[in-house]
Amino acid sequence: MTSQKVIDYLSSNQDKHLDDLVEFLKIPSISAIASHHDDIEKAALFLESELSSLNLKTEIIRTEGNPLVYAETEQLENRKTLLFYGHYDVQPTDPLELWNSEPFNPLIKDGIIYARGSSDDKGQLYSHLKAVEAYVKTGTPIPVNIKMIFEGEEECGGHTIYEYTENNPDKLKCDAVIVSDTSLYNEDTPAICYSLKGLAFMEIRVKGPSQDLHSGSYGGTVQNPGNAICEIVANLKDTNSRVLIPGFYDDVIELEEDERASFKSLNYTEDTLRADTGSPGPFGEKGYTTLERMWARPTCDVNGIFSGYTGEGAKTIIPSTATAKVSMRLVPNQDPDKIASSFISYVKSICPPGLDIEVENLHNAQSVMVPRNGAMMKAGANAMEAGFGKYPVFIREGGSIPIVGTFQSSLKAPVLLLGYGLPNDNIHSPNEKYHLDNYYKGILTTAHLLSFASTVE
Amino acid sequence: MTSQKVIDYLSSNQDKHLDDLVEFLKIPSISAIASHHDDIEKAALFLESELSSLNLKTEIIRTEGNPLVYAETEQLENRKTLLFYGHYDVQPTDPLELWNSEPFNPLIKDGIIYARGSSDDKGQLYSHLKAVEAYVKTGTPIPVNIKMIFEGEEECGGHTIYEYTENNPDKLKCDAVIVSDTSLYNEDTPAICYSLKGLAFMEIRVKGPSQDLHSGSYGGTVQNPGNAICEIVANLKDTNSRVLIPGFYDDVIELEEDERASFKSLNYTEDTLRADTGSPGPFGEKGYTTLERMWARPTCDVNGIFSGYTGEGAKTIIPSTATAKVSMRLVPNQDPDKIASSFISYVKSICPPGLDIEVENLHNAQSVMVPRNGAMMKAGANAMEAGFGKYPVFIREGGSIPIVGTFQSSLKAPVLLLGYGLPNDNIHSPNEKYHLDNYYKGILTTAHLLSFASTVE
Repeated sequence: MTSQKVIDYLSSNQDKHLDDLVEFLKIPSISAIASHHDDIEKAALFLESELSSLNLKTEIIRTEGNPLVYAETEQLENRKTLLFYGHYDVQPTDPLELWNSEPFNPLIKDGIIYARGSSDDKGQLYSHLKAVEAYVKTGTPIPVNIKMIFEGEEECGGHTIYEYTENNPDKLKCDAVIVSDTSLYNEDTPAICYSLKGLAFMEIRVKGPSQDLHSGSYGGTVQNPGNAICEIVANLKDTNSRVLIPGFYDDVIELEEDERASFKSLNYTEDTLRADTGSPGPFGEKGYTTLERMWARPTCDVNGIFSGYTGEGAKTIIPSTATAKVSMRLVPNQDPDKIASSFISYVKSICPPGLDIEVENLHNAQSVMVPRNGAMMKAGANAMEAGFGKYPVFIREGGSIPIVGTFQSSLKAPVLLLGYGLPNDNIHSPNEKYHLDNYYKGILTTAHLLSFASTVE
Repeated sequence: MTSQKVIDYLSSNQDKHLDDLVEFLKIPSISAIASHHDDIEKAALFLESELSSLNLKTEIIRTEGNPLVYAETEQLENRKTLLFYGHYDVQPTDPLELWNSEPFNPLIKDGIIYARGSSDDKGQLYSHLKAVEAYVKTGTPIPVNIKMIFEGEEECGGHTIYEYTENNPDKLKCDAVIVSDTSLYNEDTPAICYSLKGLAFMEIRVKGPSQDLHSGSYGGTVQNPGNAICEIVANLKDTNSRVLIPGFYDDVIELEEDERASFKSLNYTEDTLRADTGSPGPFGEKGYTTLERMWARPTCDVNGIFSGYTGEGAKTIIPSTATAKVSMRLVPNQDPDKIASSFISYVKSICPPGLDIEVENLHNAQSVMVPRNGAMMKAGANAMEAGFGKYPVFIREGGSIPIVGTFQSSLKAPVLLLGYGLPNDNIHSPNEKYHLDNYYKGILTTAHLLSFASTVE
């Protein structure tokens, strides 16, 4: 049973918890843009300061990359240990003109906070600190050993946390890893995610003329990198959205019947997809439903493409270069390295003549599958029920949280993906938001988890 | 026969003609930059003053745009009339740091004058004034009626000259238009350009989701505009670079055998193309040589394409939109409006499902073809032979000079493109130059033309 003092503290300190979150969100800790280096440092120090104030033994772990923030309670024998993970870095904000408020000047309106990082992942990781705060400030003993580690390179594909986890499995040893960087199934339905997709992120660069050419003087005489990049990308998939890279589907674990039935019971409709995305309609691999495509089928998508003149009006040039960023979302048992290598060979083989081509594997992530019936998984589900008032559904996610795979393999502990966000929180997009109700319920969930996990056999 | 007095005058006045050109080049008449408005006026007045001093009836034609400078000799019956066209405005000078001398303080070195506008187009248009000067100063009757019109908006896409020509066909009525705003084929080979390509410039915009989506959350479930634009562009041409737009080739005038032979005799090699473009190799429509592709085959090229995240590193989004700028260079008898309309229908028909699409025709230009065997063309070729010591080759150009189409359609006269520049004169680039030898030979050519044109039947 969770202490009533803790629960009461949380309900009477919501305004304070919101004010604190606003301060955290004001720090523009964009890891992908070098000029925000100082903000990364500032966000790490912000966490260190708050964790120290909760009497946790706290350290900033200096690495070649962005700092890790680590904290732990006293580690007592014969009780469970939970490792909490999150990331304090955020996505870039462009296109800035589509934001209705400033990304780093949080706007609170109708029970929602709008800011970059509010849902992904500052708001969610911060829940764990506020749950600990409730125990500490009310003098309630925390019944489990807590470890917390927060990184600053999640949004830019950095390697620091991976190397640190692989090199320090004893320090991070635990009975379960808690990651809150996903979402509820919908506003009324809490969820635990038991499978994540992997990722192979590729960049294709083709180069033709040494500089942009006058398209009148030279059009039709040399290969146009802009046309060529389109030809390459167009040949990555067939018209049924089947990926054409050789061997792409060889290792895919097909969906089990009970999973397909469970997904179907969620009644995800075309209208919901339209409302969630603003897209004119569903489109994807033939033979699968939208949820199956989203959660359990591998994909291949352009994330960015550019070549030549992109300003207003006309400029008649043959571009010198063209670049496409393409990511493949991979499902359990697909090996990102193998897929990336197959992608590179295939793309080079279909590159039109008269060009130089480079294909780079920018970064990879392993897919993840957590058994749905473990005891810690049950404790997590019960905590969500206590926090959100409803027993969670078990879902998958199309996104990747690469560190989850590393936690599983290095720490040999189950990873509980207790997501407090919403699918339409606009993460990675303009007007990212976080519902305050979910923020408070998330804190309560973590507070319950500290109690429930302590009784797991 | 051209008067020997005229020829002698020209050879003994080269230093004076150079000094006069230097004064003209010192005026920084950049039409694209508003702060140079007074310099535009100054350049127009410079021409007016010189034309008046040659006893031509001269006027500054005031319009909403930059002034036109018009001049004419007495217009006698029963003799030929030549209309000379040129532009006194010049390109901007940036990047200034790449100039080895000041753009508006002409440097003369090793028989070359370096200055903005030296080749494009002040040096060339000024040749015509100096040829007239030779007749006037030696008291030699000019055997044709001369009209001259010079504009100040060629480098900024202004419409003044078009409107004036269309509205005043009687005033500009003539037997041939002389345009010196192109170049010799190379240092040793004078050329007359008898065909210019037309243009249809298109923009394709596709829209999927209402905003960028997380590619993990929604990848595989909605149409990706980045992939879709590639599919569309890839289907504009086949692998042999044949354009797939229905009816695209229907009205194309195929090359004549003597044209192919003439192009072949110029020995344009793959190495020359590589050196000129820095491209790894030639590539284009099967069944045609590089010069044929460049000068006489219609093309379809991406000028710019953009979608999604185009910065450094990785950002895993499904872009909301994608845009491609595509221009088609058209050859004689292709109708830009008809081609643009066919492009729009075709692109809409091949657009993948799950998207909204817009296709816009940003602007068009008519192709131009001047009969190679007209009497005036022959007079022009003979004048070039007399001026440059070698009979010119007949070439085409891949670029468009829109005013030429307007002269042809409004004045119903052949347009002689007598280019006195060189292909590597760095027009529109730093260190623009003009070879003095070509300047003097150009003046001599125009002087001969005034004589030769008078005897055309």
